[in-house]
Amino acid sequence: MTDPITIAVDAMGGDDAPAMVVRGANLAARRRPDAKFIFFGDQATVEPHLARADVLKERTELNHTEIVVSGDEKPSNALRRGRKSSMGLAIQAVADGAAHAAVSAGNTGALMAMAKFTLRTLPGIHRPAIAAVLPTRRGETVLLDLGANVECNADNLVDFAAMGAVFAQTVLARVEPTVGILNVGNEEMKGHDEVREAAAILRRADSHFVFHGFVEGDDIAKGTTDVIVTDGFTGNVALKTVEGVSRLFADFLRRALGGSMSGRLGYAIARPAFKSLREKIDPRRHNGALFLGLNGTVVKSHGGTDALGFATALEVAIDMAAGSVNERILSELEQVHASVAPQDQAAVGGR
Amino acid sequence: MTDPITIAVDAMGGDDAPAMVVRGANLAARRRPDAKFIFFGDQATVEPHLARADVLKERTELNHTEIVVSGDEKPSNALRRGRKSSMGLAIQAVADGAAHAAVSAGNTGALMAMAKFTLRTLPGIHRPAIAAVLPTRRGETVLLDLGANVECNADNLVDFAAMGAVFAQTVLARVEPTVGILNVGNEEMKGHDEVREAAAILRRADSHFVFHGFVEGDDIAKGTTDVIVTDGFTGNVALKTVEGVSRLFADFLRRALGGSMSGRLGYAIARPAFKSLREKIDPRRHNGALFLGLNGTVVKSHGGTDALGFATALEVAIDMAAGSVNERILSELEQVHASVAPQDQAAVGGR
Repeated sequence: MTDPITIAVDAMGGDDAPAMVVRGANLAARRRPDAKFIFFGDQATVEPHLARADVLKERTELNHTEIVVSGDEKPSNALRRGRKSSMGLAIQAVADGAAHAAVSAGNTGALMAMAKFTLRTLPGIHRPAIAAVLPTRRGETVLLDLGANVECNADNLVDFAAMGAVFAQTVLARVEPTVGILNVGNEEMKGHDEVREAAAILRRADSHFVFHGFVEGDDIAKGTTDVIVTDGFTGNVALKTVEGVSRLFADFLRRALGGSMSGRLGYAIARPAFKSLREKIDPRRHNGALFLGLNGTVVKSHGGTDALGFATALEVAIDMAAGSVNERILSELEQVHASVAPQDQAAVGGR
Repeated sequence: MTDPITIAVDAMGGDDAPAMVVRGANLAARRRPDAKFIFFGDQATVEPHLARADVLKERTELNHTEIVVSGDEKPSNALRRGRKSSMGLAIQAVADGAAHAAVSAGNTGALMAMAKFTLRTLPGIHRPAIAAVLPTRRGETVLLDLGANVECNADNLVDFAAMGAVFAQTVLARVEPTVGILNVGNEEMKGHDEVREAAAILRRADSHFVFHGFVEGDDIAKGTTDVIVTDGFTGNVALKTVEGVSRLFADFLRRALGGSMSGRLGYAIARPAFKSLREKIDPRRHNGALFLGLNGTVVKSHGGTDALGFATALEVAIDMAAGSVNERILSELEQVHASVAPQDQAAVGGR
């Protein structure tokens, strides 16, 4: 495949699909003249929206399907009957080489199951991971895994470190990203076997990233490292904890300011400052969970997002495709594995 | 032991000890005329502070020791040489029946190790847990375990549910507290074996609390349940994530408002609203991690807290002692275990 970058889009996924999807893609198309799009979805529903999308419509091909994977459909069910759905066809387009990446705001579990089944994992990688970018005090940090793997061994965590580092290099433009493993303390002896063993391997490994050691929960918001690696259970809890606390804080602030005359007046005067704060923590600016470790790029947009958020997810997919993330993950992992000699591996617990 | 309630205090633990400890205890003594105190620490350092503590000095006995467990001392080291330290003697006072509870702002790992060694776990409980109270949208929620046990089996999680529920009944005055298990989704089949097995047991159990099922990371801030149970790895990460995001948000807000004239003016006008917000999320109002499941009550204050925060930790200890938390945990656990018949236990995976 050559330029332009082609993104396969599930037009039917997301709370406000397809209207939100089309508007989001139109925004992304305006910002990224290098991209074109293949939409999958119900023609009668999608076409009227597309007709009004001034920039997008010139660079989009619409493929009809009536099958849609619903938001509460079980992954096993989606696998059985979803191959010809808008989501399944978007993934198939990546497998066939018709598109560089697929983006969907639909059912996460179904998307991961179908992507794994259709695209398979990259050679040498046993488990794909879900990654996201979070706003931090120092800028942005990549957190993974966010729930693809409830249990992970040391090898999986080492793979996640390499995958996260390549993502930080490619999409966040960090030349030599720092990588931390999430733990309950900084000291070498802290935590369970899996994190200690993964840290021992990464300390020895030769790589294009810097292994920082262990980090703790508060390092997520501090942005202590560019990448934070953890198992899918802990990562999922941590991500949702961040979301919950952010909403709680915004809610407390709104109630505190709205509850008095002086509060409302102060808010009105400081409105530009609040606007800049809101933009800084706007979840739409960080929309897009990446499925890393598959033979093909798949990005999951938040289901409840709007056009702006969906455009962000599309741009992440474009950046990943343009940066050849998967090729670089493969070469990074080869280097890491080659540098950890078999006797060293035995010394850290036998991989 | 009869009234008044007696609290053993490690006068030397915490960044600003003993000045902060004495001022905090004086505050608590003023608010709680039912309490008296036994201080352990260096007489020459502590006495001058105590002499100025108008209310406290009448109800305090000071016991001299020169040995202090330092903030970075390894738990194993503290166990070996700390028996006669201010921290060790405070715990010993509880073991001897001289005090109802011990409070320290010193080294958490050392405090837990010494408390476990000296007090032992309650009969039938294999692992003690660390619990804390967090501010939520609905009020307050108890989260445990926060790091005492990096790995937990289903039985441990069931014990934590009963311990957390009794704590919520006693200190937060919830008559029939709701209890959730932290997981990566609400559905029964989600998560790893330990959480699914614990949930299966709690669904069958007869108890004085209501088992709500699984909750997710964002339910911590929502306050969906009165108690949230998890293993010490996930709980520690979640708690520190909450702390990190809270500080990040406060920092973003401060920078946004301080960065412009209109921001500073708006802040000045809305100051009462910001004050009420600050009070709501003031960590000093929620200071005090509880060690639950031991033959004796031990409360860990944050090391960096001030007098107000230390007073909160002391009051939590007083409430726990007054509410006979340990006796109630024992009877609650007996009821839970008795109600889960052996055949049911086998059906959910064999305990």
